[in-house]
Amino acid sequence: MDISRRYETAIAHAIARGQSGMPPGKLAHALEYAVMPGGARIRPTILLSVAKACGDDQPEIADAAACALELIHCASLVHDDLPCFDDADTRRGKASVHRAYSEPLAVLTGDSLIVMAFEVLGRVAHLDAQRSAALVLALAGCTGMPNGICAGQGWESEAEIDLGAYHRAKTGALFVAATQMGAIAAGHDPHAWEELGMRIGEAFQVADDLRDAVSDAKTLGKPAGQDDLHGRPSAVSEYGVQGAMSHLQDILSGAIASIPACPGEAALAQMVQAQAQRFAPQGAASKRTIPGE
Amino acid sequence: MDISRRYETAIAHAIARGQSGMPPGKLAHALEYAVMPGGARIRPTILLSVAKACGDDQPEIADAAACALELIHCASLVHDDLPCFDDADTRRGKASVHRAYSEPLAVLTGDSLIVMAFEVLGRVAHLDAQRSAALVLALAGCTGMPNGICAGQGWESEAEIDLGAYHRAKTGALFVAATQMGAIAAGHDPHAWEELGMRIGEAFQVADDLRDAVSDAKTLGKPAGQDDLHGRPSAVSEYGVQGAMSHLQDILSGAIASIPACPGEAALAQMVQAQAQRFAPQGAASKRTIPGE
Repeated sequence: MDISRRYETAIAHAIARGQSGMPPGKLAHALEYAVMPGGARIRPTILLSVAKACGDDQPEIADAAACALELIHCASLVHDDLPCFDDADTRRGKASVHRAYSEPLAVLTGDSLIVMAFEVLGRVAHLDAQRSAALVLALAGCTGMPNGICAGQGWESEAEIDLGAYHRAKTGALFVAATQMGAIAAGHDPHAWEELGMRIGEAFQVADDLRDAVSDAKTLGKPAGQDDLHGRPSAVSEYGVQGAMSHLQDILSGAIASIPACPGEAALAQMVQAQAQRFAPQGAASKRTIPGE
Repeated sequence: MDISRRYETAIAHAIARGQSGMPPGKLAHALEYAVMPGGARIRPTILLSVAKACGDDQPEIADAAACALELIHCASLVHDDLPCFDDADTRRGKASVHRAYSEPLAVLTGDSLIVMAFEVLGRVAHLDAQRSAALVLALAGCTGMPNGICAGQGWESEAEIDLGAYHRAKTGALFVAATQMGAIAAGHDPHAWEELGMRIGEAFQVADDLRDAVSDAKTLGKPAGQDDLHGRPSAVSEYGVQGAMSHLQDILSGAIASIPACPGEAALAQMVQAQAQRFAPQGAASKRTIPGE
């Protein structure tokens, strides 16, 4: 089965379980709305690519890890879109969850998806309880405090912002988790995979800043120009558009160079390159259609 | 060590870990503010009482379970108080988290506490990975969709409410988790403990409805009369104050009768009785000081 079918199947099963029995109907629908159809699914793609590069001896655990990580990502998008954060009307080309359902249901959707992510990891403990627990810890580390995406958002409420910590937590954490959880799921040492995740995260952040600056809302499937509007630090405000573009290329070369020696090394380098081409805008003036996150 | 020292120590350690390093300062403080000083801590008290009744052969796991359950409870209070839900200005006799910090920080505090709860359970996997995973699943079940407290809140957005499912999910779920997680932490079968949790949950819901109806905000440490104000279903609107009082007594007798045969059975019955006396209002007119949740 190809990678995208693997994680989509795992995600669909998790959502179906969350809707089983006689749950409150609107919240049950909102869970699905927040997660499907997906955006670029770059994090589960990286996770499963790393798991395959590491031998993928327990594919069901790797699928659970990919699903859990994407659920956390989707939860973060739902909460980030709330009126008290970005107040975004659209996401992935349709109404944001709080616009389509309501603000209370958006809060609960995010909460439920966070919980579901850990539940998915708990459900594979019968296959390997140690890996399941290691995945729980890795996922918690990239999501909560003091270093996860919650911490990243938390930095936006500070008068003095630690820019490095902000980017590492807000964007980098889930990419580090993608490479490390892929390794854990396949029984490999996660530490060797940290640098690749960090570098992909940096690349993604710069690419995202560029897209926010040079694309329009229709192309992005969400409001554009948000960094500028909210006065948020970005690679474009720091280096300018051309500077950010060449910075991005440097980071990607470093990412590929950092891939640990493993059976699937070459295929993984190709995947990183392909994802990068998919995400980086072609130039400051180009506006092509890319799936929004 | 007595029960309250055990769970307070576990909670303090978890919060300290969430604040370690150089995290965003306001969110780090808000985590602590949301959790300490605590309310009645009835759920971790029940959990550790059940674990003790079951032999408590792995106290560190039981402490982690008690801590995790209380973190989820505190997270739910922070999110329930948000302007889009109860819009509560006060909680436990002080400003609610979104009033003391901000709405974005309250959303992130709840999110971070949910994540922290699962992290705490993952951290005891080195002692017993199977019990750790079973606790993750039990905690997820009582928290998320389709049957946990998120589902309970979700029912409030439905035009037609399933009252039984609403109460079981909104209040009952965490009490069932308290008894079942106590049993799991001590290596016992959780199913035998479900009924006790359900009955304590029902009793607590009725007691809470009574307190909301007959107490004032100063006594409760949070706004009173909320059920009436928000048109929420309650035992008082259903049976009247006196009817609800006698219903409460019946439920408690059933709870004590349902305790499975175990070495600590008598002590546990005493604990249930003591908690009930602590929570039930003395009468419709009495207004005594009890710790707010």
